[in-house]
Amino acid sequence: MLFTILLIVACRDFKTQKEVVSYNKDVKYYNDLERIEPLNWWVGFKNQELQLLVKNPDIAMATPEINYEGVSIKAVHKADSPNYLFIDLHIDRTAKPGTFNIVFKFDNNETIIQTYQLKPRLKPSEDYIGFDSSDAIYLITPDRFSNGNPSNDIHPNLLEKGINRKDNYARHGGDIKGITNHLDYIEHMGFTAIWPCPLLTNDMPSSSYHGYAMTNFYEIDPRFGTMEDYLELSEEARKKGIKLIMDMVANHCGSEHWWMKDLPFKDWVNQQETFVNHENLQNSNHRRSSNQDPYASASDKKAMSDGWFVPSMPDLNQKNPFMAKYIIQNSIWWVETAGLGGIRQDTYPYSDKDFMSHWAGSIMDEYPNFSIVGEEWSYNPLIIGYWQEGANNRDGYDSNLKSPMDFPMQGKIISALNEDEGWDTGLIKIYEGLANDFYYASPKDLLAFTDNHDMSRVTTQLNLDAEKVKMALGYVFTMPRIPQFYYGTEILMNDTKKPGDHGLIRSDFPGGWDGDKINAFTGKGLSDKQLDMQNFVKNLVNYRKTSEAIHNGKTIHFAPEAGIYVLFRVLNDEIVITVLNKSDKEIFSVSRFEELNLNGKTAQNIITKTQQIWKDNLKINPNGITLLTTKLNN
Amino acid sequence: MLFTILLIVACRDFKTQKEVVSYNKDVKYYNDLERIEPLNWWVGFKNQELQLLVKNPDIAMATPEINYEGVSIKAVHKADSPNYLFIDLHIDRTAKPGTFNIVFKFDNNETIIQTYQLKPRLKPSEDYIGFDSSDAIYLITPDRFSNGNPSNDIHPNLLEKGINRKDNYARHGGDIKGITNHLDYIEHMGFTAIWPCPLLTNDMPSSSYHGYAMTNFYEIDPRFGTMEDYLELSEEARKKGIKLIMDMVANHCGSEHWWMKDLPFKDWVNQQETFVNHENLQNSNHRRSSNQDPYASASDKKAMSDGWFVPSMPDLNQKNPFMAKYIIQNSIWWVETAGLGGIRQDTYPYSDKDFMSHWAGSIMDEYPNFSIVGEEWSYNPLIIGYWQEGANNRDGYDSNLKSPMDFPMQGKIISALNEDEGWDTGLIKIYEGLANDFYYASPKDLLAFTDNHDMSRVTTQLNLDAEKVKMALGYVFTMPRIPQFYYGTEILMNDTKKPGDHGLIRSDFPGGWDGDKINAFTGKGLSDKQLDMQNFVKNLVNYRKTSEAIHNGKTIHFAPEAGIYVLFRVLNDEIVITVLNKSDKEIFSVSRFEELNLNGKTAQNIITKTQQIWKDNLKINPNGITLLTTKLNN
Repeated sequence: MLFTILLIVACRDFKTQKEVVSYNKDVKYYNDLERIEPLNWWVGFKNQELQLLVKNPDIAMATPEINYEGVSIKAVHKADSPNYLFIDLHIDRTAKPGTFNIVFKFDNNETIIQTYQLKPRLKPSEDYIGFDSSDAIYLITPDRFSNGNPSNDIHPNLLEKGINRKDNYARHGGDIKGITNHLDYIEHMGFTAIWPCPLLTNDMPSSSYHGYAMTNFYEIDPRFGTMEDYLELSEEARKKGIKLIMDMVANHCGSEHWWMKDLPFKDWVNQQETFVNHENLQNSNHRRSSNQDPYASASDKKAMSDGWFVPSMPDLNQKNPFMAKYIIQNSIWWVETAGLGGIRQDTYPYSDKDFMSHWAGSIMDEYPNFSIVGEEWSYNPLIIGYWQEGANNRDGYDSNLKSPMDFPMQGKIISALNEDEGWDTGLIKIYEGLANDFYYASPKDLLAFTDNHDMSRVTTQLNLDAEKVKMALGYVFTMPRIPQFYYGTEILMNDTKKPGDHGLIRSDFPGGWDGDKINAFTGKGLSDKQLDMQNFVKNLVNYRKTSEAIHNGKTIHFAPEAGIYVLFRVLNDEIVITVLNKSDKEIFSVSRFEELNLNGKTAQNIITKTQQIWKDNLKINPNGITLLTTKLNN
Repeated sequence: MLFTILLIVACRDFKTQKEVVSYNKDVKYYNDLERIEPLNWWVGFKNQELQLLVKNPDIAMATPEINYEGVSIKAVHKADSPNYLFIDLHIDRTAKPGTFNIVFKFDNNETIIQTYQLKPRLKPSEDYIGFDSSDAIYLITPDRFSNGNPSNDIHPNLLEKGINRKDNYARHGGDIKGITNHLDYIEHMGFTAIWPCPLLTNDMPSSSYHGYAMTNFYEIDPRFGTMEDYLELSEEARKKGIKLIMDMVANHCGSEHWWMKDLPFKDWVNQQETFVNHENLQNSNHRRSSNQDPYASASDKKAMSDGWFVPSMPDLNQKNPFMAKYIIQNSIWWVETAGLGGIRQDTYPYSDKDFMSHWAGSIMDEYPNFSIVGEEWSYNPLIIGYWQEGANNRDGYDSNLKSPMDFPMQGKIISALNEDEGWDTGLIKIYEGLANDFYYASPKDLLAFTDNHDMSRVTTQLNLDAEKVKMALGYVFTMPRIPQFYYGTEILMNDTKKPGDHGLIRSDFPGGWDGDKINAFTGKGLSDKQLDMQNFVKNLVNYRKTSEAIHNGKTIHFAPEAGIYVLFRVLNDEIVITVLNKSDKEIFSVSRFEELNLNGKTAQNIITKTQQIWKDNLKINPNGITLLTTKLNN
């Protein structure tokens, strides 16, 4: 009953994102500690344990005490540095939301007091619904999408100063407000989820725009906005049915992370001694297959897992149980705080793999309907499948990861479209690639994409051929997968001037800055070709939004013949047909597809809305894609 | 007790391969039928059922009777043609070896009588030991290896007349006797198994030399020799510890097969109606992945499985249960008749896959220690692994096939050696390829090879670079696999004049014909380079013969660095080290391999027998292979 009331309060609270649960009036508030993390916690989690990281000079000399009903200290752990304590709390199911003081008593009778809050949960665990194959994800590089709040572009206390839109590796000023401002556009285009690259503080001296060198795991980068901005984004997105996916990094932090100056344990990061002694750090050998390889040498495995991703990114040691708990709690904190609709986990295979299984398992255990997508950049389907929850791995490994990224199909799609058609070249690459789905635990939970923020844009990969870009996108958005789209492809953004240049890949979205001459949000200044592509994407993604055949339908495809490959998605009455045509033919015979029983049905073009009867021959786009839909009972 | 006596008789019999079990003197022998198959059977099989194919004009009008203790007719099946009967026998465990008459009675009181023999089994089922990772297989194209009996080169009753050694696609005269004559050479080279390409009658008008268009599944091609020659080969090989692997084809026969003129059933072969009406037959679409693809269309699956391999090879319909039994019994008949040490099954994925599982399962059920290797020509490890017994296939398929061929590693080895070294090119291809072993049910049961009779010879694939050929062979013979070698590679035979030409790939082995100026068996006329390669192969394969570390050892390998890749095989005291060096370095540091604890050990070169101490730096062959062995306790 109390729970119900709390929920009502909670929901109201969640809507406004303001704190409505009053602090206990009998408590006097203290903020003595330099740092306590997680910043707060909640009552009512399945897991009743919480480990607090406490940082303050010589805090290891103190003994903490808590006097709050339902909350007890189970253990206090000293670290190697005297300036840390790790406190294991048990938060009983009977504990009520509220605040309490943690009193740290020193031998000399001095005390330090810190107030800590246990919030009510805003909705039941099951209501944290992750993305799935009914969604379409819009991936954004926040610094390059839109500058919604120019007043936060520069922050005086942070290392990287200034913005410079002409420097591909400087900050450009894009921010959370910029995304929030353009949720209408994203919704209009048909997307149901957004994945902004990391938004947490990266107080690094340079190239901080990308966000993957986090220096504080509990803080929104002030140049992207405030916590309130982030919660507003989440809330506004939710109103539009758009899920917010948070990009997290468990493998590393930025070398300017606050703890690097005073590391709690001797093994808080890998190669810590080398780092402390200012010796040469080893980069990871990046031989990610050593995670699976039954023959990998111990030294290769260690070099893979313990090497630093790059010298500016200290490699977190998740084998240290305090670090492990820190990362897991941080993830849960963000899910609960921002009501996330998913997590994207960076550099998945670089972390300790047993930890990663524990991490994902802990989150999924708390939020059974949630979703996590993990980045393993491998073109080998064996490796991708290994990482998916439910894989039949002979070593018994289960990742608890619902959605690995489907790099293999990304590679195949590009090859298929670029190569000349031949017995084992061209479209057959897609056909054989999709056939590999027999191996995956759940093909439709893989994340499909034509490109992302780390690789040449699809328009560049396909040599500026817009029709090929349509073929690639059309396939990704109709195959049995969760499709992900990188901002700007709808207007053919590319890095062809210097293929693969990260700064160029992450170019500014025109119209995102006041004064931009071209505005892709409104269409102003776009070329006909760009408008055509934008229209294609809009129609495709919006059709997909309500197409259960694409979300969950049966898949049937036919081996390419004479440069034409056809994919069918079928559910109940609905059939979606994707024709990839690399030939000049404009007419083709449908006799091969007899088993679909479509003769005489009216097929509507998903993009142009024109109709034709499915019989004998079909009109299709030469050297392009034709997307059709029909009803079995029409 | 009787069984023991029979076994003693049997063993004696097996040694001489002559028939010692006397026919029952009370039986009068008849041979009235045009055809009865299997030609004979045995008592004492686990499976007590036998189905006889009987062919004679209008035999369907007759009723067969058998009067022999322990043998009963369970069913008689008429076919679509009146000239066939299929008789299901039960051969009870109590049945004794001997002969009996099958009396076919017609309504008009006419009778046809056929004598049929049940032989005693020559050794227990468990003693049919197949090849495994302790073996090394020598693959031979029999027509091109050695002409041991010139008197059988031409057979007056067969369609293809004459021999012509200058015509790559004509018969050259090589035969079984030629192989038997050179078992000494094969043994001397260190091989423990031979796989001759098919030796059964191919009474085809042209290109009959290759043997894959069989026109009689129960007859040795007279141009290769007699059944006695084949049994002699088996027996002489056995004496040398060399297993005989028979190359079988379940998917198709030759278009001149005797039954094609009077097919027993309307669905004995696929597309039979098309064939009978002289219409255009459909070739297989060769899209083998449709066997695994969860999305393959019904029409693609049918085109794959029911299409003919080539127009001269009718596609057997194993879905017809009589055909299925025919093929299984034929295989068991040959295992038992010739005391085989293995079967190689051609074009594995082209037959009905449920049948193939049943076929392999039936053989393995009868011979639990036997081995079968199957040809699936795919470079996709997902597909290869699918076909291996014990695969964790999501569709539940279990092939019962111990040894798929490892085409993926074959491809990787060639790429690794031909490509320039780079982050993801060169030796890394081997390293990543072998890492895929995590997926296989049993990596060491895969058949590894550098080339075979269907592809360009390895020497051609590696651009005549003998050192690279050594690297490829050295790797195949030390990796955890069953290695297969194609005759002639030891003298660098190649098809570089016209790469991929089948006739050229299957060139004559010099010295195999009387009058050959060069004799590779004796070394006469070979170049220094050829002699060097022959010596390399001899030393490598002979070392492997007794190396338990290679047969069954643990595998550890190290990611390539600076063009050098190192593989270790370890069992108990023995360590084998394969160093593939694509750099000019002659000295390299062993510090990376510390975990092997080899410091101070004496390492002996497997080829040159020279020794060096494993410490700090090691001398290795530049741009070549170094094969070392050491003892942990030396």
